[in-house]
Amino acid sequence: MSVQHARAPAVETVEAPAKRGFEFLNVPGPTNIPGRILNAMHRPALDFSGPEFIALSKQIFEDLKPVFKTEGNVFIYAANGHGAWEAALSNTLSPGDSILVPETGNFSASWADMAEALELRVVTVPSDWRRAIDPNAVEDALRKDTGHAIKAVLMVHTDTATGITSDIQALRGAIDAAGHPALFMVDAIASLATVDLRMDEWNVDVAIAASQKGMMLPPGAAFVAAGERALKAHAASSMPKRYWDWGDRMAKEHYRKFCGTAPEHLIFGLREAIDMLNEETLDGAFARHARLAEAVRRCVECWCAAGALQFNAVNPLERANAVTTILLPPDVDTETVRAMCRDHYRVSVGGGLGKLMGKAFRIGHMGDMNEPMILGCLGAVEAALKRLGMPLGEGGIGAAVDWLSHPAEAR
Amino acid sequence: MSVQHARAPAVETVEAPAKRGFEFLNVPGPTNIPGRILNAMHRPALDFSGPEFIALSKQIFEDLKPVFKTEGNVFIYAANGHGAWEAALSNTLSPGDSILVPETGNFSASWADMAEALELRVVTVPSDWRRAIDPNAVEDALRKDTGHAIKAVLMVHTDTATGITSDIQALRGAIDAAGHPALFMVDAIASLATVDLRMDEWNVDVAIAASQKGMMLPPGAAFVAAGERALKAHAASSMPKRYWDWGDRMAKEHYRKFCGTAPEHLIFGLREAIDMLNEETLDGAFARHARLAEAVRRCVECWCAAGALQFNAVNPLERANAVTTILLPPDVDTETVRAMCRDHYRVSVGGGLGKLMGKAFRIGHMGDMNEPMILGCLGAVEAALKRLGMPLGEGGIGAAVDWLSHPAEAR
Amino acid sequence: MSVQHARAPAVETVEAPAKRGFEFLNVPGPTNIPGRILNAMHRPALDFSGPEFIALSKQIFEDLKPVFKTEGNVFIYAANGHGAWEAALSNTLSPGDSILVPETGNFSASWADMAEALELRVVTVPSDWRRAIDPNAVEDALRKDTGHAIKAVLMVHTDTATGITSDIQALRGAIDAAGHPALFMVDAIASLATVDLRMDEWNVDVAIAASQKGMMLPPGAAFVAAGERALKAHAASSMPKRYWDWGDRMAKEHYRKFCGTAPEHLIFGLREAIDMLNEETLDGAFARHARLAEAVRRCVECWCAAGALQFNAVNPLERANAVTTILLPPDVDTETVRAMCRDHYRVSVGGGLGKLMGKAFRIGHMGDMNEPMILGCLGAVEAALKRLGMPLGEGGIGAAVDWLSHPAEAR
Amino acid sequence: MSVQHARAPAVETVEAPAKRGFEFLNVPGPTNIPGRILNAMHRPALDFSGPEFIALSKQIFEDLKPVFKTEGNVFIYAANGHGAWEAALSNTLSPGDSILVPETGNFSASWADMAEALELRVVTVPSDWRRAIDPNAVEDALRKDTGHAIKAVLMVHTDTATGITSDIQALRGAIDAAGHPALFMVDAIASLATVDLRMDEWNVDVAIAASQKGMMLPPGAAFVAAGERALKAHAASSMPKRYWDWGDRMAKEHYRKFCGTAPEHLIFGLREAIDMLNEETLDGAFARHARLAEAVRRCVECWCAAGALQFNAVNPLERANAVTTILLPPDVDTETVRAMCRDHYRVSVGGGLGKLMGKAFRIGHMGDMNEPMILGCLGAVEAALKRLGMPLGEGGIGAAVDWLSHPAEAR
Repeated sequence: MSVQHARAPAVETVEAPAKRGFEFLNVPGPTNIPGRILNAMHRPALDFSGPEFIALSKQIFEDLKPVFKTEGNVFIYAANGHGAWEAALSNTLSPGDSILVPETGNFSASWADMAEALELRVVTVPSDWRRAIDPNAVEDALRKDTGHAIKAVLMVHTDTATGITSDIQALRGAIDAAGHPALFMVDAIASLATVDLRMDEWNVDVAIAASQKGMMLPPGAAFVAAGERALKAHAASSMPKRYWDWGDRMAKEHYRKFCGTAPEHLIFGLREAIDMLNEETLDGAFARHARLAEAVRRCVECWCAAGALQFNAVNPLERANAVTTILLPPDVDTETVRAMCRDHYRVSVGGGLGKLMGKAFRIGHMGDMNEPMILGCLGAVEAALKRLGMPLGEGGIGAAVDWLSHPAEAR
Repeated sequence: MSVQHARAPAVETVEAPAKRGFEFLNVPGPTNIPGRILNAMHRPALDFSGPEFIALSKQIFEDLKPVFKTEGNVFIYAANGHGAWEAALSNTLSPGDSILVPETGNFSASWADMAEALELRVVTVPSDWRRAIDPNAVEDALRKDTGHAIKAVLMVHTDTATGITSDIQALRGAIDAAGHPALFMVDAIASLATVDLRMDEWNVDVAIAASQKGMMLPPGAAFVAAGERALKAHAASSMPKRYWDWGDRMAKEHYRKFCGTAPEHLIFGLREAIDMLNEETLDGAFARHARLAEAVRRCVECWCAAGALQFNAVNPLERANAVTTILLPPDVDTETVRAMCRDHYRVSVGGGLGKLMGKAFRIGHMGDMNEPMILGCLGAVEAALKRLGMPLGEGGIGAAVDWLSHPAEAR
Repeated sequence: MSVQHARAPAVETVEAPAKRGFEFLNVPGPTNIPGRILNAMHRPALDFSGPEFIALSKQIFEDLKPVFKTEGNVFIYAANGHGAWEAALSNTLSPGDSILVPETGNFSASWADMAEALELRVVTVPSDWRRAIDPNAVEDALRKDTGHAIKAVLMVHTDTATGITSDIQALRGAIDAAGHPALFMVDAIASLATVDLRMDEWNVDVAIAASQKGMMLPPGAAFVAAGERALKAHAASSMPKRYWDWGDRMAKEHYRKFCGTAPEHLIFGLREAIDMLNEETLDGAFARHARLAEAVRRCVECWCAAGALQFNAVNPLERANAVTTILLPPDVDTETVRAMCRDHYRVSVGGGLGKLMGKAFRIGHMGDMNEPMILGCLGAVEAALKRLGMPLGEGGIGAAVDWLSHPAEAR
Repeated sequence: MSVQHARAPAVETVEAPAKRGFEFLNVPGPTNIPGRILNAMHRPALDFSGPEFIALSKQIFEDLKPVFKTEGNVFIYAANGHGAWEAALSNTLSPGDSILVPETGNFSASWADMAEALELRVVTVPSDWRRAIDPNAVEDALRKDTGHAIKAVLMVHTDTATGITSDIQALRGAIDAAGHPALFMVDAIASLATVDLRMDEWNVDVAIAASQKGMMLPPGAAFVAAGERALKAHAASSMPKRYWDWGDRMAKEHYRKFCGTAPEHLIFGLREAIDMLNEETLDGAFARHARLAEAVRRCVECWCAAGALQFNAVNPLERANAVTTILLPPDVDTETVRAMCRDHYRVSVGGGLGKLMGKAFRIGHMGDMNEPMILGCLGAVEAALKRLGMPLGEGGIGAAVDWLSHPAEAR
């Protein structure tokens, strides 16, 4: 690619305007927090061992299950997604165990890195970060493990670094085809409530998620759903742990469910978030994400026509409904784009992570989003890119409008 | 106009989707209320006669003056804009007085109607609602009043029904040219903090405004600024009044400044609103309104190219920076457009008022607005109009993006 | 009274501590605003002419009726209580009309003063401000008006200056006994939702109220309930008016119900307030006010035993459930007491008004109050008075605790 | 003790009244959250890797140091106090290490229990839970450990189960006197910002705390402060860990400071909390806690005079400024007391924990508290106890008022 394009000569010298109006938060998490949820959190704390909080949290534990489409146990941690990763690993594995971590992108790398810190041995299926995980490659890797040293397969459903969603059902098929007994653990941090995840139907043993993406909450709560096989593995795990320990959290006493004080305000917010999801239905939320993501893709496709920008995800069918990762020309730095969008157009977009650091920017479109929010984001990013002199194909934002002008039913 | 266009066959039968994400409030008031202001109002009431509230409100009375660019008195009412209208009339006039009310649109009509209820005699300068007030016509009307029966000229600066802003400075010139002593009263409800209004420099005697437009507050507070000549007229007024009475409100005792309990929470919000305006500067706010309004106009201009839609304001230079009024083809009802935008695209646009009832829709773009908010609104309205089968010229939203892609300094 | 007591020598020189914890707002209005209501107001404005706001406000107009126990019309104004007073007068009377205003205290005086500004002639039944209005005196005054020049009787139900509640039903009886056709207008600002008011059963023609007392809202909304006879009087009234005019507000078009833009956020709060009242029931709210007020009275009675303090209300049965007015010894200034309570004990109490200016302080106990709030207020005021060297009888706060230690049913 | 007292025969059959007014949260954590903090948290999330959040969190890490009175490192976890416990242990110790955990009450027991789950060996200094830790006993225990197998001494500064504060400075002296090199770790969860803790001056190696006590925040954030010796121990620790790992969190990249996404809203709240503490000064906050706690103790002392109730803490000087634990007569169950306070008097008090389960109740008085809040709580609890027929000595609440009637300077 030898695209010519002017750079904004001195973006930094132009004073940023006053911050007015909605802040468009189009990073791939944290996401926009609905006013209903912020209001639900604007309240006094509760006596943690009083009947009101106990009733509330009991119901929450129940109501989280259908979000994961599981009848297994769901654990709620005061933690972030990394905490949930550690909970998944430390409850089911023992130091020295091997695990298979197909390389989805930055987040499989970080999870694997954590696993190594926990004295697990990591086997990987390498990738160029531009394609979803190939089930056949996973099947092959597992077939090679004839002694079943691999105790778990760790899959990131949607890697927000790459903007790619892998096919969990197909991957389950691959494990089954290999006849391998490894646990199947899915990082659903960016996928929960944005695309379908059928934990029980697809035999996912552990699914982990966090509050600040499709669940629309502030960061600070993490969720781990565990099926029967995972609980059995827990019984055999020798990893030292207490805070993450499912055993303790399954005790009858209510306070042990949180290993200490519950993150009450996130629970208050979670109540509202689940209510909102139930009002919309999960299928409604999935359809909305698909519709809005397609608007983003149609716009970006136009931009890419000029040859300067590219989708990171090579295969259109693998592009995530949660986030779109866009590769920049080699002479444009991510931070220039981010700063222009943020300081002059009130839109925060994500930067590149890991291998893509400095080379990509990311438009998040998950959570509490709607048509004008997406169009406002795309329009502002288009204006910012033009102002930076980026060559863009014609019709970007218009293509998004066209797509959204069709009834949802017809799309 | 004999435009052909399809109508959405059965909009009503398509179930509206769940309400998710920001609500885009693009009616011409009330406007978007910044989180900072809502937070400033989320607090306990204060002892109305305690030192904290007294200090706060004293400062507010001072800090409102530069917003009007006056050194006169500003009165704050628990009321809406209609209340401010009545305050202006009842404090300066007496039953039987004549007034001149040039016809700007729906709001001059309503104000005149109120004046008649208050037993004033209304002289008007008629208009087709598609042009700003002609200063010459006002001068003529005043010259004819050789006996100076007309005690006041009432001008709506920006009539939100028509989307037209009249030239206050030129109108002042007209009054002066006629050598007429009538008071000059300006309804700045939709103009305050959106376009320049120099009360003292332009010899405006009374300016009235309300909380829910450029001031970014919830409705419920109204402001009346009065210069010296207006206070003299007050001394001579025989209109029965107490709640509106400036005399009472100029008394030393603090509680009399509000004729009873102050609308404290609106005062708390007003403190924050004035701070925000001061951070941005009034000139910054005016420039922002001009920039965003031009984006709307460039988009609408493209739409109009297909012949179905028209700007209500014939003269581009008279189009308001606060709101754009768009005429619909005769066979399209405003409510169809409004419902589609609202129910399927989460954008509230205004309907036609008065003569334009059912014949126009209005996009509000004043107050706490920014680039992606405007682009999101325009994109969603464009999608809605397309979905309704409205013939639209090409490139609407793209033209808005283009305009906004230039640095503010260069526009 | 020649009570000896030390004064705090220099209260002002002791630096006030940091403001921490709940602010105890024990002025007789504005009152404590529940978090539920503040949250209900922490939201975007609505399109004033959209279906959501119209449905909400229609229901509110209906739901306010049972609060007044009327089937008449209720009008909602962006205004305060003084605005409601003016609305009541200007809609039903004409310049030159006579009215009877029995002297309840500061607020009958202010209302009468307003009436004079509106060119009404005021006849009064004088009082020493320490007793409820005597129905016989009202009957006598009306009997003397053989020509029925008096068009209305204006009664303040609970005058917050005096802490006295008059007997509305008995006063109705007095008017009937005199066979007088005057309208009966009741200022229920401090009584609505704190003590029973049966507008229709007691033949009250107009009742006025405001948002910031028993209704638990921020100040800024005022309510006027009007029965059939009042509406008939409206038809005959010649007072110039528009903002207050019931006729305009009874028009079909929704926007006319508020004569311009509605005070939307107060309506959002009002929805929540009415829901809360309905959950508790009006009778529950009355009983709670009676119970808490009795706790205050038992405490204050103990304080008074030392001879320095006195109840303003001579007759215990006339002491209001909304506020208690306490006379100070002649050498103690109200502001000293208020400042000590506020700056050192985080409790705001009211000062004396009108004749009682500087001579009394007032403990408000209406609205969103409960047992520990009242006990906290009383305990802090007791500590403040002791710190000021005020002679107090023993057992004040203890007596309040004793009273509240009995089950509500048994009280 | 053979106290006779009636029991409320059927508390449960009396319907609880409507929940109105402030909720008095007098459990020993979570505590009252100031409106300023709740408002600071009512805002959109921020781009976690944008300059605004990075600047904010960098400053927070600095500003937490003086709260601990340390120049060491402070780590912030999305976790609760138990998480902070685990962070302290897993960063500095290795499986198989011995630790000394003097028995302060329920929380030393839980921390020791966690340590065993992490494969540490626990040595204890037993206690009857009614006295502070005896420094001599700690010195003896350490002297016996001639081989320095004990790697750390774990001390709970204020055990909220017992209501007792131990003397950290004296315990440091004991360790020094024994010439023992063990790390000194202090659980300051209930003491931070309520009583003095001078981490550096007293040579505390690790101090842990959480958000929901003296820091006035919702639960969900935990803090670990680590001095130089602790960081050295970290380098030698072989405990598997990642989420808690200080090494990772000391990396330059900002996002690693939180091992994943930061609990942004708690950081927003923390900013406000630290600002509030700085406004009051730490010494001011300590003095306020001491003053309010003494009011509680004076009241409870009166109650105890009747012989039914007792302070759990035998030694008055050891009674905590954060919480008061009160022993109930054997035939009264904690839950009866808690339910009466909560359901009929809107005050939540804590129950007994561990050994004291069912035998004690606890009044929390830490965090964002003031005089009327404490007096309201005490008055309501006194009423509740009386209603339950509990024999109480005279003058409880009155003694608290007396104490608080003296100027703070004179106490």
